[in-house]
Amino acid sequence: MFLHTSRLQFEAKPAQPDALFARKLQELIGGAWGEMTVTMQYLFQGWNCRMEGKYKDLIMDVATEEIGHVEMLATMVARLLEGAPSEVTAKAVEDPVVAAVVGGMDVQQAIVSGGGPTLSDSNGVPWNGRFIVASGNLMADFRANVAAEAQGRLQTARLYNMTDDPGVRDMLKFNLARDTAHQNMWLAAIEELQEDGLEGPIAPSALFDEEHQEHAGTIWHNSDGTAGPEGRWASGPTPDGTHEFSYLMDPEPLGDKASAPKPDPLLYATSPANLGLIEKAIRKLT
Amino acid sequence: MFLHTSRLQFEAKPAQPDALFARKLQELIGGAWGEMTVTMQYLFQGWNCRMEGKYKDLIMDVATEEIGHVEMLATMVARLLEGAPSEVTAKAVEDPVVAAVVGGMDVQQAIVSGGGPTLSDSNGVPWNGRFIVASGNLMADFRANVAAEAQGRLQTARLYNMTDDPGVRDMLKFNLARDTAHQNMWLAAIEELQEDGLEGPIAPSALFDEEHQEHAGTIWHNSDGTAGPEGRWASGPTPDGTHEFSYLMDPEPLGDKASAPKPDPLLYATSPANLGLIEKAIRKLT
Amino acid sequence: MFLHTSRLQFEAKPAQPDALFARKLQELIGGAWGEMTVTMQYLFQGWNCRMEGKYKDLIMDVATEEIGHVEMLATMVARLLEGAPSEVTAKAVEDPVVAAVVGGMDVQQAIVSGGGPTLSDSNGVPWNGRFIVASGNLMADFRANVAAEAQGRLQTARLYNMTDDPGVRDMLKFNLARDTAHQNMWLAAIEELQEDGLEGPIAPSALFDEEHQEHAGTIWHNSDGTAGPEGRWASGPTPDGTHEFSYLMDPEPLGDKASAPKPDPLLYATSPANLGLIEKAIRKLT
Amino acid sequence: MFLHTSRLQFEAKPAQPDALFARKLQELIGGAWGEMTVTMQYLFQGWNCRMEGKYKDLIMDVATEEIGHVEMLATMVARLLEGAPSEVTAKAVEDPVVAAVVGGMDVQQAIVSGGGPTLSDSNGVPWNGRFIVASGNLMADFRANVAAEAQGRLQTARLYNMTDDPGVRDMLKFNLARDTAHQNMWLAAIEELQEDGLEGPIAPSALFDEEHQEHAGTIWHNSDGTAGPEGRWASGPTPDGTHEFSYLMDPEPLGDKASAPKPDPLLYATSPANLGLIEKAIRKLT
Amino acid sequence: MFLHTSRLQFEAKPAQPDALFARKLQELIGGAWGEMTVTMQYLFQGWNCRMEGKYKDLIMDVATEEIGHVEMLATMVARLLEGAPSEVTAKAVEDPVVAAVVGGMDVQQAIVSGGGPTLSDSNGVPWNGRFIVASGNLMADFRANVAAEAQGRLQTARLYNMTDDPGVRDMLKFNLARDTAHQNMWLAAIEELQEDGLEGPIAPSALFDEEHQEHAGTIWHNSDGTAGPEGRWASGPTPDGTHEFSYLMDPEPLGDKASAPKPDPLLYATSPANLGLIEKAIRKLT
Amino acid sequence: MFLHTSRLQFEAKPAQPDALFARKLQELIGGAWGEMTVTMQYLFQGWNCRMEGKYKDLIMDVATEEIGHVEMLATMVARLLEGAPSEVTAKAVEDPVVAAVVGGMDVQQAIVSGGGPTLSDSNGVPWNGRFIVASGNLMADFRANVAAEAQGRLQTARLYNMTDDPGVRDMLKFNLARDTAHQNMWLAAIEELQEDGLEGPIAPSALFDEEHQEHAGTIWHNSDGTAGPEGRWASGPTPDGTHEFSYLMDPEPLGDKASAPKPDPLLYATSPANLGLIEKAIRKLT
Repeated sequence: MFLHTSRLQFEAKPAQPDALFARKLQELIGGAWGEMTVTMQYLFQGWNCRMEGKYKDLIMDVATEEIGHVEMLATMVARLLEGAPSEVTAKAVEDPVVAAVVGGMDVQQAIVSGGGPTLSDSNGVPWNGRFIVASGNLMADFRANVAAEAQGRLQTARLYNMTDDPGVRDMLKFNLARDTAHQNMWLAAIEELQEDGLEGPIAPSALFDEEHQEHAGTIWHNSDGTAGPEGRWASGPTPDGTHEFSYLMDPEPLGDKASAPKPDPLLYATSPANLGLIEKAIRKLT
Repeated sequence: MFLHTSRLQFEAKPAQPDALFARKLQELIGGAWGEMTVTMQYLFQGWNCRMEGKYKDLIMDVATEEIGHVEMLATMVARLLEGAPSEVTAKAVEDPVVAAVVGGMDVQQAIVSGGGPTLSDSNGVPWNGRFIVASGNLMADFRANVAAEAQGRLQTARLYNMTDDPGVRDMLKFNLARDTAHQNMWLAAIEELQEDGLEGPIAPSALFDEEHQEHAGTIWHNSDGTAGPEGRWASGPTPDGTHEFSYLMDPEPLGDKASAPKPDPLLYATSPANLGLIEKAIRKLT
Repeated sequence: MFLHTSRLQFEAKPAQPDALFARKLQELIGGAWGEMTVTMQYLFQGWNCRMEGKYKDLIMDVATEEIGHVEMLATMVARLLEGAPSEVTAKAVEDPVVAAVVGGMDVQQAIVSGGGPTLSDSNGVPWNGRFIVASGNLMADFRANVAAEAQGRLQTARLYNMTDDPGVRDMLKFNLARDTAHQNMWLAAIEELQEDGLEGPIAPSALFDEEHQEHAGTIWHNSDGTAGPEGRWASGPTPDGTHEFSYLMDPEPLGDKASAPKPDPLLYATSPANLGLIEKAIRKLT
Repeated sequence: MFLHTSRLQFEAKPAQPDALFARKLQELIGGAWGEMTVTMQYLFQGWNCRMEGKYKDLIMDVATEEIGHVEMLATMVARLLEGAPSEVTAKAVEDPVVAAVVGGMDVQQAIVSGGGPTLSDSNGVPWNGRFIVASGNLMADFRANVAAEAQGRLQTARLYNMTDDPGVRDMLKFNLARDTAHQNMWLAAIEELQEDGLEGPIAPSALFDEEHQEHAGTIWHNSDGTAGPEGRWASGPTPDGTHEFSYLMDPEPLGDKASAPKPDPLLYATSPANLGLIEKAIRKLT
Repeated sequence: MFLHTSRLQFEAKPAQPDALFARKLQELIGGAWGEMTVTMQYLFQGWNCRMEGKYKDLIMDVATEEIGHVEMLATMVARLLEGAPSEVTAKAVEDPVVAAVVGGMDVQQAIVSGGGPTLSDSNGVPWNGRFIVASGNLMADFRANVAAEAQGRLQTARLYNMTDDPGVRDMLKFNLARDTAHQNMWLAAIEELQEDGLEGPIAPSALFDEEHQEHAGTIWHNSDGTAGPEGRWASGPTPDGTHEFSYLMDPEPLGDKASAPKPDPLLYATSPANLGLIEKAIRKLT
Repeated sequence: MFLHTSRLQFEAKPAQPDALFARKLQELIGGAWGEMTVTMQYLFQGWNCRMEGKYKDLIMDVATEEIGHVEMLATMVARLLEGAPSEVTAKAVEDPVVAAVVGGMDVQQAIVSGGGPTLSDSNGVPWNGRFIVASGNLMADFRANVAAEAQGRLQTARLYNMTDDPGVRDMLKFNLARDTAHQNMWLAAIEELQEDGLEGPIAPSALFDEEHQEHAGTIWHNSDGTAGPEGRWASGPTPDGTHEFSYLMDPEPLGDKASAPKPDPLLYATSPANLGLIEKAIRKLT
C-alpha cells in the first residue's frame, strides 16, 4: 500500500514559463526511457521478485521514489505552461521566439490537458506498458535498469543544455544526480548478485552446457568494415571467463536454404498446385 | 547496402509441426526483446555512430547477423505450422492436446499470414519502433544492448524448456550460444570504451560537476522493507569511484507542496474564479 | 445499413485557410475524445444493446449523426489546408506568423494526405479502437457517454478560443450546441434507466450483498492533504442511498506482506535455490 | 512524494493457482478501464488541479489508494500462476481442463515475466497513456471518473462469476466495494461542484450564449428505429434546466455539399488539371 | 450526413453459437485488412477527393456500404457468443471441443463487451487509424483499395473454411461476393483513370523527367537466388511503356561509405573528442 | 543470411543541414508507407513464399535492396541534422526561418537519438509490424506491393518539392526511379502470375462458385451522388471477365433487423429481465 505527501521530493519551480521546453520535458515523463518507465519497471520487478530481502526491498525503495519523479516533472510542466498561448495564433505571435514556441509547443497540453502534462513523450506518443520489463531474473532486469538510468541521464543532460532557466536547471541537477546514484546502485547490485552466488554475469546462468558452445565465443564478420577485430572482443577470454573470443572472418551459413513448407490448400497460398485450376475456375463462371 | 544468401545462418528444421509452439516463438521474432528489436537497434546504432573504426564496424557486423536470426525464426515458424488446423474446430479437435493447440494457437498466423509468422509477439501485438534505442552515446547504448541480449537469452531459455522437439532445440541451442556470445561481447565493449578513455562507467560522462552531488550517492528509503541497507549499495564507494553510498533512512521531501499554476480562463479549468459565474451563465439562458 | 447524402449536417466553411488550426482540429477527429470515438462507441453500443426499444433507437440515432460530425471536420480540415505551404521552407517563411505555421503544422496532412485530414489526433497519433466501450450495461455505458461529450465539449471550447475565423467559429458553435444537447440527453437517459427500474445509479446493480460492505462507503486518507474530509463524500448518505460515507483518517493495510510465490526452476527467476549452482555451472565450462 | 508499506491494502491469496484466471485478471491491471488507468488518471488530475483544497486532496487520496490496487492484482496474478505449465505441451496436458488452461493462458506471463503479470490487458495488449484524461476541468474529469469506476466494477463483477476460488473472490469483494464507494464518491463530488457554484452540470460551463442554441436541445432522428422519441429526452426540460428537448423527426442537412478545395499541384492529387498532362509526360519518355 | 436503417444489408444469423469463431471474425471487423479499414479508408478518400463527379460519388457509395458490413459482422459476433462460457472454467469444460473454445475464445468479448464484439482484430489488438490511406491521388489510393479488397477476400475465404455453420457461411458468401465485386470495381476504376487521361499507371504521374532514369528499369540482384531473371520483369518493356527492364546481376553500391557527421558536444555522442576528458571529469570528482 | 557493405546503394549527401526536412524524411523511414514497411513486407513475403523459383527470388532481391534504402535515409537524416539547434531556444532563434525550424523539428531526433533518426514517422509515431502483410497468396500480396510503391513514390514526390537542396534532391531522384521501377516490376509480376496460370486477377482465385454470385457484380448506390453510374464499373463485363457490372440504384437491405441476443445474466447487460430486481437489491441494503 502507498502513502503520499503533498510536498515534492525536490523543488520544481521554473523562473519563468517556457511552453516549448514543457513539450520537451514530456520525454522524461512518458518517453520510452522516462520516469514513468522506471517507476513501473521497478514496481513490477519488486512485486515479481521471488526472494525476500535486500534486493526486493531495494527495488521497492527506488520504485516508490520514482513515482515522485513523475510528480515533479508533471508539476514542472504545468508551471512551464503558465501563460502559454491559448488563443488565436496571429495574436499570439509577435516575434520569432514566440513563433518558434507556437509552432513547437505540444498542442495537446492545451487542448486535452488544459495547460498540464499528458502521459506521452515529447512527440505526443502515449507511454505504453511494453516499455517495461520485470522478468523475475534479477541479473537480466538489473541490466535493463542500468540501461534505463543511462538513457534517462543522457536525455536529462541533453535537456539541461536546452534551457538556461535557473529553476528548471536546479531540478534537472537533482535528476542528474539521482540518475548517477541509480546507475551506480544497479551496477553495485549486479556485482552483489555475483558475489552472493545468485547469478553469474550472463543471464540466465543456465543451459550453458546445452547451448552449442562452438558458437558461444565467435563474432561473425557479416559487414565489410575491417576494424571490428581490433577490439578485445576479438580474442582473449570472455568477460565471464568461460570462453575464448574469436572473430569469424569469412562466415558461411550453416543451414540449408530457407524455404516454407507446402501450402495448405485451405489457406490459398500461391503454389504450383494452382496450375490450371484458376483458369478452370474462371472459365466455369463465364 | 546489403546482400543476401538463401541459406540460413543455422538450421531451422523441426522434427514435427507444433502450432502452439509456433505462437510462442513469435515472442522471439516480434517481442519487445526479440530478434527484430536487436536487428533494428544495432542497425540504427551503427548508422548513428559518430566514430569510425572498431566500435562501428562491430555494431554493423552484429546487426547484419541479427537480420538472419529473424529469418531463421520466420522459417521455423512456417515449418512448425505445417498441417496446423485450418478447418472447422469440431473436426480439428480430437483429444486434449489438440484442444490445447486449437485454443492456444495464434489465429492470425492462419487468417492473415496463411500459415506463416507475423511481425508480432506471442500475444499478437505488433512489434514497434519504440522498442529500439540508438542514442549516439555508446556507453548508454551498449548497456541497453547487454540488457537486450540478457532478456533475449532468458526468453530463449524458457522456450527451450517448453519443447522437446530435437530440431527446434537444435536451433535454440544456437540462439542461446549467440546470446551468450553477444552478452560477453557487449560487456567487453563496455570495458574497452573505458580503457580507451572514451566513456566512463556512468552515461553520459558529463555534467558531474553541475549535478547536485549531495544526492548522487544516496539511496532513499521510501518503502518500509528493512533489508535494503544490507547491500553494498548502502555504504562504501560507488562503482565509478566518485562517491560514497549512503542510505537515507528517513527521507524528507525537499520541495514545496506540489501545485499547478493559476488557470488560464480560456482553458476552463475549475477554479475559485468560477464562483458565481456558472449560476449566472445558466440563469441567463433560462 | 447506412445511406449518405452529400450535404453536410452543418456548414463547414472557413473564411480563410489556417494550416495550424487544421492541425489542432485533428484532436476532434481522431483524438481519444473526438468525434471518431463517439461515432464508434455509439455504433457498437447500439449493436450490442440487449433490449429493443427507446434506448437502442436513441443510441442508433445519435451514432448515425456522429459519423456526419467526422465528415464535417474532415471537410473543414481540407479547406483550412488550402494553400498551405507545401514547398521549400525558406520560400514559405516570410514572417513570424508563417514561421509558426510552418513549424506547427501537421506535416503528414501534406506528405500523407495531400492536404487533407488523417485519422489521428493533434499530435499525429492514430485513433485506436481501445478508445471506445460498449459493455452492454447501459448505465456504465451512458456514464462513459456523458464523459465523452463533456471532454469533447471542453476541447471544442478551447479550440473555439484559438480561432477568430467566423466560418470556423460558426461550425464550432454548432458542435458546442450538439455536445450540450448530447450531455443533457445522456443525463436524461441515466435518469430514465433508473425510473424504468432497469438500472440503479451504481453499475452494475448487482453483487451488493456479496461485496465487503464495510468497505463500500469509506474514503481512505492515503495522502496528507487535510481538506479531503471537508466534502459531502466524508459523511452522510451515499448518493445511491445504500451506505453512509466515512473518511478513514489513519488507514492501515488489511493484507499481509506482498510476496510472489516460489519460482519455477524452468523460468529462471533469481532465488536462494540458485545458491552455489551458478558458480558450479560456470566452473564446469572453464 | 510517495511512501510504501510492504503490506497489501487487502489480502490477495488464492486458494489455489489458476493460470487461466490469471490471464483474465490482466484486464483489471492493464485494461483500458483497469486499475492502472484510474491510478494514472487520478494522479494526473490531482497534479493538474488548479484549486487547492478538498477536491484536490480527495483526488490525491484516491489516486494513492489505487496504486495499491495495482499492487494487489499484480500479487494475485503471480500467486495464481504458481505451478502453471511451463514445459512441453504434451506433458502438460492431461485432461480437458488442463487443455483449456494451456490453450487459454497468457504465454507472455511465462515467457516474458517468468510467472508474473505484465502491464497489459487480458489479450496481452499493453496499457497506454491515452487511456487517461486530466483536463483540469473537474466536472468533465469527474464524469470520466464515474465512468471508469462503473466500467471497472462491471468488469470485476463479470470476473467474480468466472471463479469460485474463495481467496480470489474475497479480494474481488473488496474491489467491488471500493468501486461502489468510488462511484458514490465521484457522484457526490459532482453534486458538490454544483452546490459550490464551481461548475454547472454541463462541462464546461461556458460558451452557452455563443453556441447555436436552436441546436442545443434537439435529438436528430437519423436512424429508422421508431421508439427513440418515447424517452424523456424527447420533450420537457433538459436536466440542466436551460433548454427544452425536442426530437427532430425528419432531419435535413443544414450545410452544403461536402467538397475538398482545388488541389495544390505540388501534392499530386488527381484533378481535371491533370487532363492531357499525364499522356504528355509518358509520351515524352518513350 | 448519414442515415441508418435497422435492417442489415444481408442476413447475419448463425445456426448456432460458436465462441471460438466469434473471436476469429474479429479479424474482419478490426483487423488491418478488415471492414473497419475499408470503411474509413473510403470515407476519408471520398472526403479528400479533389474532383467532383463519378469517382467521388463511387467512393462514397462504397464507403457507405462498408459501414453496414461492420454492422453485419458486429451482429454476427454477438449472436455467435450467445451462451458462451462466462462462468468458472472447470464447470464450463466438459470435453475437448469445449476446452478448445474456453482456451481460444477472446476473453475481452466477455469481460469488456459483455458478449459482444470489440473494435480489435482476432488477437485482440485494437484497430488503428494508420491502417487507412487517403492521399488525394486516386491512382495510388485505388491501388491500395484493390489490395485491401484482395486481402479482405483472402481472409474471408480462409474463415469460410473454418466453419460449417450454414448461417455463418451464408453471410460469408455475401461478403466474398462483395469483395469480388469491389476488386473488379477498383480495377475498372484504375483503367478508367487512365482512359480519362487523369492518371498514368505509375503514381504519381509526375517527376519522370527528374528521376534518375538509368535506375528506373533495373532490378538489383541483391540476393543469391538465381531464378529472379527468368520473369518478364527482367527484360522487355515495362508495363507503363516508358522503360526497358534489365536485371543488374552484380550490383555495386553507388554511394560512399555511410557515416554520421561529427557529433554535437551538447548531445554527448561518443567520439574521439571525448578522449581524456572523461578521465579528467571523474578524477576531479574524487 | 545477410551481408553488408559499408557503402551506400546511392549517395546521401545534403549540400547543407536542414533540421526541418530531417523531420519530414522520417515519413520515408518509419511511416506506414515508408522504406521500413517495404523492407519488412518483402522479407516476410519471401520467407513465407510457398513456391521456389522466380517469384521468391525476385522478392528476396528487392527485399534486400530495401534494407539499404532505410540505410540511405537514416544516413541522410543524420547529416541533415548536423548543427541543428540543441541549445536554449532563445539563443537558437534569430529569424523566422530558424523559428520555423525550431518549432517544427522532431525534438526526439535530438533528445533520444542525439542527432540521428528514430524508427518513427514524420509525426514521431513509431513504425509498427501491422503495416506489413505477407499472406502467402502472391496475387493479394503483389497488389499490396504495388500500392506500397505507389504511396511511397507519391510521398517522395511531395518531399522532393519541399526541398531545393541539390544533394537531397539527387538522392530523392534515385528513390523516385526505384519506386517507378518497383511499381512496374510488381505490375509485371501480376501479369506473369496470370500468364503462368497460378492466380487469376481476383484474389484468391477460389470460392467463386460458392459466393452469392448475384451480388458479385453490383455496385450499391448508398450515397446520393448521381455520377457514380457514369463509370465503366456501372455496366459491361468486369475486368476478370466473369460477371456483368450493374448499378443498384435503390438498394434495399436484404437482412432482418440487427439485434443482439438475449443477455447472459452473469454479464450484467441491461435488459427487461432487470425490471424490479434493481430496486429490490438497493432496498435490501438500506
